[in-house]
Amino acid sequence: MSNKKVGKQTIMLENAPAIIGVASIVGPKEGQGPLKDYFDLIINDMYFQEKSWEKAERKMMKEAVEMAIKNSKLPYDAVEYFIAGDLLNQIISAGYTARDIGIPFLGIYGACSTMSEGLALGAMIVDGGFAENVVVATSSHFCTAERQFRFPLELGNQRPPTAQTTVTGAGAAVISLKNDNPRITFITIGKVIDMGQKNPNDMGSAMAPAAVDTIFRHFEDTKRSPDYYDLIVTGDLASIGKDIAEDLLKEKGLDISNKYSDCGLMIFSPNQDVHAGGSGCGCAATVFCGYIYKEMKKGRFNKVLLVATGALMSTTSTQQGESIPCIAHAVAIENL
Amino acid sequence: MSNKKVGKQTIMLENAPAIIGVASIVGPKEGQGPLKDYFDLIINDMYFQEKSWEKAERKMMKEAVEMAIKNSKLPYDAVEYFIAGDLLNQIISAGYTARDIGIPFLGIYGACSTMSEGLALGAMIVDGGFAENVVVATSSHFCTAERQFRFPLELGNQRPPTAQTTVTGAGAAVISLKNDNPRITFITIGKVIDMGQKNPNDMGSAMAPAAVDTIFRHFEDTKRSPDYYDLIVTGDLASIGKDIAEDLLKEKGLDISNKYSDCGLMIFSPNQDVHAGGSGCGCAATVFCGYIYKEMKKGRFNKVLLVATGALMSTTSTQQGESIPCIAHAVAIENL
Repeated sequence: MSNKKVGKQTIMLENAPAIIGVASIVGPKEGQGPLKDYFDLIINDMYFQEKSWEKAERKMMKEAVEMAIKNSKLPYDAVEYFIAGDLLNQIISAGYTARDIGIPFLGIYGACSTMSEGLALGAMIVDGGFAENVVVATSSHFCTAERQFRFPLELGNQRPPTAQTTVTGAGAAVISLKNDNPRITFITIGKVIDMGQKNPNDMGSAMAPAAVDTIFRHFEDTKRSPDYYDLIVTGDLASIGKDIAEDLLKEKGLDISNKYSDCGLMIFSPNQDVHAGGSGCGCAATVFCGYIYKEMKKGRFNKVLLVATGALMSTTSTQQGESIPCIAHAVAIENL
Repeated sequence: MSNKKVGKQTIMLENAPAIIGVASIVGPKEGQGPLKDYFDLIINDMYFQEKSWEKAERKMMKEAVEMAIKNSKLPYDAVEYFIAGDLLNQIISAGYTARDIGIPFLGIYGACSTMSEGLALGAMIVDGGFAENVVVATSSHFCTAERQFRFPLELGNQRPPTAQTTVTGAGAAVISLKNDNPRITFITIGKVIDMGQKNPNDMGSAMAPAAVDTIFRHFEDTKRSPDYYDLIVTGDLASIGKDIAEDLLKEKGLDISNKYSDCGLMIFSPNQDVHAGGSGCGCAATVFCGYIYKEMKKGRFNKVLLVATGALMSTTSTQQGESIPCIAHAVAIENL
């Protein structure tokens, strides 16, 4: 076994790459939520002055990437790879952003786990000495996701209370070999877990077992206890999934409840009519690049375990009667 | 700059990870083509005994992965990560395969460049010491791709002569730290190139400039000349794109014509009514895992540059009048 491997699924990053610059852009609803003061830009118009929601989404991603690089204080051409993905078919937000920014591109897809997957791959590429600086990004948009995965918004369909609200937002982070804080120290790459749930209007329940599997594995592999972290945060399990995850972990003898939060619950307040809470690639991305990162820089959080969660179904797989395969990747981010 | 970086976009893999086992599965048409004797399995039924083409595609991927691991002679649980993607929305072939095989999963999307992207990421993960063994896979299926990207097959639409035929097939490769041949020595990660082409029925022309950019960059970065390689092979430019790529490279002073081939031209013979030639993630994957790898083991090819090419548009981006952003990643595979 490699000496960088800890336990079964966890990698220790010897050089602990730093996150040296981040940016987050969100939509109007997120800009009225409890984290509104943490975002770099709040757009007031779901079209962001573009002709379609898809073009608006990729404009958010592009501007977040450019802002993160600017915030990192690196010259633009020092960023060697762009690692990104999003929810749209063929990850077009990432693909067109890659075209516009001109940085060599590695496209990824992990549904709403994309921010963790990107940070994990970016950290390995930097830690392994294959690049000094990479930028990772992801995005989602309420209107593009609704029309692709559910119904055209114009239909005005009702949504059940278990449904989540896709976050309109983009987050980007520059990972570097520099000796700065916060640093990425461990990553636990998740397995796909599918407990047979088939309801695309209840993603939190579907994803909870994947989060549980990865969180449990992370603590087994690292021999850490939940007390080690100031914050353990899942991506977008929202109210129903978070409770399930907490209960399932307790059944396995792991009580994370006094450290545990979920980005889908943090980004909106319950009176914003968001049903179970937030979801989408942009949820974990903007909460991390907005709130968590900035509170780490201030020293309020020093040890964070970010566990973005993704549901890997498509409309075709749902129509063909398949259950929802889910995944979660854990990234330990620490002030050293 | 990192000491593993060569020139602007190329990475030198110090440990030169080996490809220790591969497998390829193809459909009936590919099984009648010139490479038919190189594939591990030819399916006679486009449904592969499943209820839908999508389920058939993921069954091909799953069986290819299991066969590649078997051919690598590794115990199943020695394979630490599964890196895969495919053309279907939300890469469901890869997602469901990951669920069924139970290996920690990193989802990628590079359209038809996926095999190169997977080999590049897998090689970095192994070379960097983050894993000893990983498996990389991709797939495509003529019927799933036609109905997702173009028209339902039942309509019987005519296709123009520039159109390509999506390969039905899956390829998988196990990458390992072992001291075996062939080895992955250099990777050149591509930029997204978009020359304004908007016709999704002429992907070869759209992708050719991306292939040219990456091939040119590879030779600039490594200071190698095309003579170094026994074979330079693009993924699926097919007849029109291959000619364009050759011409554009000549204009840049690089003549690769006597070493150059394209998987989309190799997998079918012109009398198979495939228009410009083959395409799809499965094209480069099965030609590499079938023909090229086996000829490298025999020593007929000792130095190969595999440049899988991808077109990163979606039906939505095409409907919104966008041009086609394209990418190519180059992977140097050598008997050392």
